[in-house]
Order: sequence, then structure tokens, then C-alpha cells
Amino acid sequence: MTHRTVSRALVDPAPGLPDAPHAEVTAPVPECPVEITLAALRGRWTTLVVRELLRQESRSYSELAASLPGLSDKVLSDRLGRLVTAGVVERHRTEGWPATVAYRLTSHGRQLGPVLQALWDWGAARPLA
Amino acid sequence: MTHRTVSRALVDPAPGLPDAPHAEVTAPVPECPVEITLAALRGRWTTLVVRELLRQESRSYSELAASLPGLSDKVLSDRLGRLVTAGVVERHRTEGWPATVAYRLTSHGRQLGPVLQALWDWGAARPLA
Repeated sequence: MTHRTVSRALVDPAPGLPDAPHAEVTAPVPECPVEITLAALRGRWTTLVVRELLRQESRSYSELAASLPGLSDKVLSDRLGRLVTAGVVERHRTEGWPATVAYRLTSHGRQLGPVLQALWDWGAARPLA
Repeated sequence: MTHRTVSRALVDPAPGLPDAPHAEVTAPVPECPVEITLAALRGRWTTLVVRELLRQESRSYSELAASLPGLSDKVLSDRLGRLVTAGVVERHRTEGWPATVAYRLTSHGRQLGPVLQALWDWGAARPLA
């Protein structure tokens, strides 16, 4: 479904928004799909954590921490917890001793790839002031 | 360029990010294209103001205010000012008496259409919990 609608956007560079009730809201509501996505991406470091998980399917906490060395444990834990709540990331506990926890994107989370790409493209295309 | 890279995203649903220096940052930097776009969209009401201008090419201040009746003058002025600074909106002063000011998206601003579409699609596709 994402693919179909993104394709439509390619045909029409200013497509307006879908014919759906939330496209007609006249005030911000958290149930609006645009707000849901922006809320999932909110917070310093969040998009970088998602990027790391897009690059490598499964990461342990310590691998994630090593890939973003400026990120404190407190913030990394917070961001992972929020991404789990948002349905972007899942914790995967491996069998064995010691048990380890791997973090992966859910299939919905992987669909943030095209979203980050669209955000990137617009920011990279900014005309020189 | 946007079309090419979005097309690439369509081929590969988890494309990683472009081969560019900012794709390798290990800490948030405001010059990262993703941050630029998120900063342009930041703030309650901002995406709704952009939506109104995507729907109708040129709007007076009072038309914008009427289309979003819950939005205060203070916030609408602030959001328009920020969108002008971000290169999304331009003020267009018409000749005549009284002179009137119309707000329009810049051509770069109109390219937020596909970005909002991508944000919408992801939020709308969220699996039921």
C-alpha cells in the first residue's frame, strides 16, 4: 500500500493528502497518520537509532551503543523503549546462556526506510539561500 | 533527484541511507538533511499549514486563518514566519490598494507533498496492536 501511494506522489508532486477523515482535520490530533509518524521519529538520536537498525538487521544493545558512541545509556534505553512502544523495534531474546537480547526493526519499522529517504531527499535538495 | 532516490526506495524497502557524509554521522547534527526536514516540519500546526497551501496555491492570511479556525494569530504568524525562513513558504505582495499579501509554497516547499505523503502512509499503515 505504501508503494502504491508513494508512486502516486511521484506522478503528482503536490498531491494533497488522501481522501480520508484525518486528511480533513482542522486542528492537530494525535491519531492523524502524519502525527503518528512524526511522534515515532521524535527525539534527538531517534532517527540515528533507526538508521543503525536499517543497516544491520539485528543488533545487541552493546553493538548499538558502540555504533553511536556519543549516545548515553539513559537516552539509548529511552529511545529503544519508545521505538518498541511505537511498533518500530522489537526485542528478540536468544536462547542459551547467557541469554542475549537483540534489537530488530519490525516489518512496519523497516518501512521507515522510504520515509527517512523522503525526509533526506527534501533536506538535501534545499536550494542555496 | 528526489524522484530517482524515492524510486530506489521503492525497489528496496530498507535501502539504508545515501552514500553521503551526513549519512555517516554518529551524533545528531542540524546540517543532516533528515534533521533539516524534521526541523522545517516541527511544531504543532505546521504540517496543517503546509497542507492548506498544498491544497490551494495562494492564500491570504485571513483565508489561512479561516481554514484552521482553532489556530491563534500568534501561532499562525509564528509558523508562517518559520516556514518562510525554512524556504518552504514565500510572501507575495500584490499591487494595488489596499496591497494584500498572499502566502504560497516555494517550488521547494511544494516538494513537501511527497514527504507528507510518506509520513501519512507509514502512520496509516500501522498494524493493529
